[in-house]
Amino acid sequence: MEVCFTPLPADFKDNLNKVYEAIEESDFLAIDGEFSGISDGPSVSALTNGFDTPEERYQKLKKHSMDFLLFQFGLCTFKYDHTEEKYIMKSFNFYIFPKPFNRSSPDVKFVCQSSSIDFLANQGFDFNKVFRNGIPYLNQEEERQLREQYDEKRSQANGAGSLAYFSPNATKCPVTIPEDQKKFIEKVVEQIEDLLKNEEKESLELEPCTGSEELNDAVGFSRVVHAIANSGKLVIGHNMLLDVMHTIHQFYCPLPDDLSEFKEVTSCVFPRLLDTKLMASTQPFKELINNTSLAELEKRLKEVPFSPPKVESAEGFPSYDTASEQLHEAGYDAYITGLCFISMANFLGSFLSPPKNHVSARSELIEPFFNKLFLMRVMDIPYLNLEGPDLQPKRDHVLHVTFPKEWKTSDLYQLFSAFGNIQVSWIDDTSAFVSLSQPEQVQIAVNTSRYAESYRIQTYAEYVEKKHEEKQAKRKCTEDSWKEMERKRLKTQGTPYVSPTRYYCVNSFTGTSTVGKRSMSPIQEETGSDDMEEGDGQDSEYDQTDYCVESLPDGKKRAKKFKKIKTEQVPAGSLTSSSTGIFEVPETW
Amino acid sequence: MEVCFTPLPADFKDNLNKVYEAIEESDFLAIDGEFSGISDGPSVSALTNGFDTPEERYQKLKKHSMDFLLFQFGLCTFKYDHTEEKYIMKSFNFYIFPKPFNRSSPDVKFVCQSSSIDFLANQGFDFNKVFRNGIPYLNQEEERQLREQYDEKRSQANGAGSLAYFSPNATKCPVTIPEDQKKFIEKVVEQIEDLLKNEEKESLELEPCTGSEELNDAVGFSRVVHAIANSGKLVIGHNMLLDVMHTIHQFYCPLPDDLSEFKEVTSCVFPRLLDTKLMASTQPFKELINNTSLAELEKRLKEVPFSPPKVESAEGFPSYDTASEQLHEAGYDAYITGLCFISMANFLGSFLSPPKNHVSARSELIEPFFNKLFLMRVMDIPYLNLEGPDLQPKRDHVLHVTFPKEWKTSDLYQLFSAFGNIQVSWIDDTSAFVSLSQPEQVQIAVNTSRYAESYRIQTYAEYVEKKHEEKQAKRKCTEDSWKEMERKRLKTQGTPYVSPTRYYCVNSFTGTSTVGKRSMSPIQEETGSDDMEEGDGQDSEYDQTDYCVESLPDGKKRAKKFKKIKTEQVPAGSLTSSSTGIFEVPETW
Repeated sequence: MEVCFTPLPADFKDNLNKVYEAIEESDFLAIDGEFSGISDGPSVSALTNGFDTPEERYQKLKKHSMDFLLFQFGLCTFKYDHTEEKYIMKSFNFYIFPKPFNRSSPDVKFVCQSSSIDFLANQGFDFNKVFRNGIPYLNQEEERQLREQYDEKRSQANGAGSLAYFSPNATKCPVTIPEDQKKFIEKVVEQIEDLLKNEEKESLELEPCTGSEELNDAVGFSRVVHAIANSGKLVIGHNMLLDVMHTIHQFYCPLPDDLSEFKEVTSCVFPRLLDTKLMASTQPFKELINNTSLAELEKRLKEVPFSPPKVESAEGFPSYDTASEQLHEAGYDAYITGLCFISMANFLGSFLSPPKNHVSARSELIEPFFNKLFLMRVMDIPYLNLEGPDLQPKRDHVLHVTFPKEWKTSDLYQLFSAFGNIQVSWIDDTSAFVSLSQPEQVQIAVNTSRYAESYRIQTYAEYVEKKHEEKQAKRKCTEDSWKEMERKRLKTQGTPYVSPTRYYCVNSFTGTSTVGKRSMSPIQEETGSDDMEEGDGQDSEYDQTDYCVESLPDGKKRAKKFKKIKTEQVPAGSLTSSSTGIFEVPETW
Repeated sequence: MEVCFTPLPADFKDNLNKVYEAIEESDFLAIDGEFSGISDGPSVSALTNGFDTPEERYQKLKKHSMDFLLFQFGLCTFKYDHTEEKYIMKSFNFYIFPKPFNRSSPDVKFVCQSSSIDFLANQGFDFNKVFRNGIPYLNQEEERQLREQYDEKRSQANGAGSLAYFSPNATKCPVTIPEDQKKFIEKVVEQIEDLLKNEEKESLELEPCTGSEELNDAVGFSRVVHAIANSGKLVIGHNMLLDVMHTIHQFYCPLPDDLSEFKEVTSCVFPRLLDTKLMASTQPFKELINNTSLAELEKRLKEVPFSPPKVESAEGFPSYDTASEQLHEAGYDAYITGLCFISMANFLGSFLSPPKNHVSARSELIEPFFNKLFLMRVMDIPYLNLEGPDLQPKRDHVLHVTFPKEWKTSDLYQLFSAFGNIQVSWIDDTSAFVSLSQPEQVQIAVNTSRYAESYRIQTYAEYVEKKHEEKQAKRKCTEDSWKEMERKRLKTQGTPYVSPTRYYCVNSFTGTSTVGKRSMSPIQEETGSDDMEEGDGQDSEYDQTDYCVESLPDGKKRAKKFKKIKTEQVPAGSLTSSSTGIFEVPETW
């Protein structure tokens, strides 16, 4: 069902040009990863607290998720055929394993989480393909070190003999060819003989003779990631923060300490990202899509007002059948992600006058969705903004409560029973955020608790300040490093930084709303209901634990007005930056 | 090739009685484990320093090896058929995986080491069987907790309705049967109806209605380990310290902090252990066996003066072909281990007069080898003694040296060039033990180094004392806890503690010898030679790293005298404890 590079590294090598070609010719790429685990640490509810700041979330994922292995990487390339008015798709499924390359290569240790492994096993995941035939990889530092080893070896081998290159007559003694270089030398000799025989040829391009063949084998799958990075193509993923973090961590460098540095690294590896889960959660899609899990989203986007995308697999490439639902093979998930993107992008074309059926990956219509990664289960910050500082929602209705570890959610409900509707977001055994429906209630709650002995209540602002004080010593000023990053970015890219053009009001998450779509249901958390909202990979694995679900209380759907865009001044499909400002993205939510 | 309980837990359940029966009828058992990794931590040379104390080695393995998963357990049972004069063998291969049992069951995380996984993959190990169909397990505490949950659930379900059992007329309202108990209730109703119909039957034995069926499923493979433990049978392994540690850690309890407590726990789980690697490394075998790796040992023991054992697989059980060498399937390795034991045990019979061809697992001839686990690559302590305090070799010829991290083995050779033959055992980047050939040289070396700035030399005794001082605060007195353990053991076992009968002088390791069989070759360590002495599972995995090998310098084999046992006073095959003392095992080596 897929072009699968599992049998042997040799197969991978032979097919690598196919992959390069597919990336190069594509309009956009979709990716997906499968991991040996999700969270190695606190309970998942603590890992994904509803009031995490983006910085906190990044730190948690970095600390508790990076010891797992990204062991399957799905890549799907999409190229638009203007004549046939359809996309041509090429799907690749890479099994990845850090097989020790030689005695001095790193002996990687990675963690497996039983629930994740069991989940993949139930999907028919082939672990033998990973461990027996997985493609190796090196990060950039490991590659550099190995390259140095080769260079050193070569210079030692050459020694005095290297003079021969400059003065052929000086030394004519035969040089012993090391066993591991014989094949390469033989090939070169053959090519030179061929050049001498062939009168038409005048020059010959030789491969660098640095043991680079072996080096390339060791760099392995990282070469594909480099090709993706260097292509500068738009890269699509669904709920892709962990995919991006793992990809960088495994194939580039250990994740940086600060979120701002992570954003900088990401902008180098993936200059243009689009998260379909974030796109589907944003206007104009939010109103039309109830469930943004990958499988459900794909189904929804086949129905009106959306249109199923026209996609065919390229000649010689096997096709996927969306009806048979092979979810959780990375290549298939990447394919479905691509389909979702196409449907949503094309839907945006319907707002143009005249409407357009096809909206390309280069269209400015989709730019507002660039470089914003969906933040799982954060109540009031929909995304991690890779292109600047993150949103800072008002949290003046939120309290931070500490209490004895025997307390349950019901105890908190009782404590705040005078304040009407509340929401509880557990931090750990002895603390939680409690959000009230009215900011005015906050001070009352704090005041009434002043003499309580078993619990302690402070405002969110007080909590943040204390935390900040604790960390001040060791933390750099994020603002400064952000500016520095911007400066570097402008310098290296050579193109002026243009803030993303904004067409749609993505203001659908509000910090003060307690009944919005992203509200949390602590009752369901308590009962551990099976009725999960999310169904896609990472989500459903999280959901195997006790994490609460997001649900929409009946009859409380907030009416939202979607403002239809007038684009009379702008030629269809070619909106320019002059349209910036038609819709404002507020700085806070 | 093996009875393999992989397809479904149901298969495991159905065949469990077969396993119980095989254990119960056997004369002895052989076991072997395959792990997802060996060492997660320092370099293996640091993990297995040649001058580790047993306590240090235990602590290192506990710290750096227990996060791996024992995911294949081989069990081979051997029963002697006196009529046919041969052993009947039953081999079992269990794939093990901590599949989460339900939402509240532990979500186990375990580490994989690439080199170990790659090693097993090359042996054709089937990872899909582990992860898709592995048998779950619980340790004793997890089992207790789950049992409590069931008991609580049951007492809640009974509630007031439980009165019905005592007074059938009082409450006649129908009771709702929970969905998960329907099958069980239906079965019981059927059995009762059957009893009422059948006039011959007078009583009916019902299964306990505690959800124990489900509980048994969750306890899973731990039931096999319990059966082994409860059988009290002799359990054989090859180089089995890690197998024993993992088995206890995974199926009984987290490993205790102190070695003495570990010995205590081990005596409960495995009251009688025998390590074939230790046996083969001890007189009278030591002189006859050059290579004690499992594969080589098995080959050697087929040749004179040994005899290949007569072993057949039981009816309905598949047989292994030792010629095809399926090493590293745990069941096969356990089988080979059993073969080695039989050959060696029978060889001991040749020293009796009249000689005996068959020496049973109950013979006192093998008692000297009981409960001594081989210590990998410790220079002067051959085994971990499970039945008492460990040997304390004199280390008055050993120096502890600290130096800059740039130093290599050659620097140490140069430093000690005046002292003739030395041996280097690396501890970490900046320290090593150096053993000199003469204890008298030690003080000279210390004195001459007094004013050195880049390095520091102290005697082994000084090093130990400093280390002891550092740890004194937090460490209990091992001697006291050992006495306490002995006291408890005598109390619980109800049988007097008999020190093992000693027939053979196992004094083949000497602390002062620098050219003995267990000497280390730092030169080979430096060059990373492929020529490894060890070839069996754990060993060869260690050997993939930079750990030095043990080799015997040519022409320096120390002549050892083997004292042939005179047993005229003792009836053949029935040596009694009166023979204790014929050969002394010295308290130090």
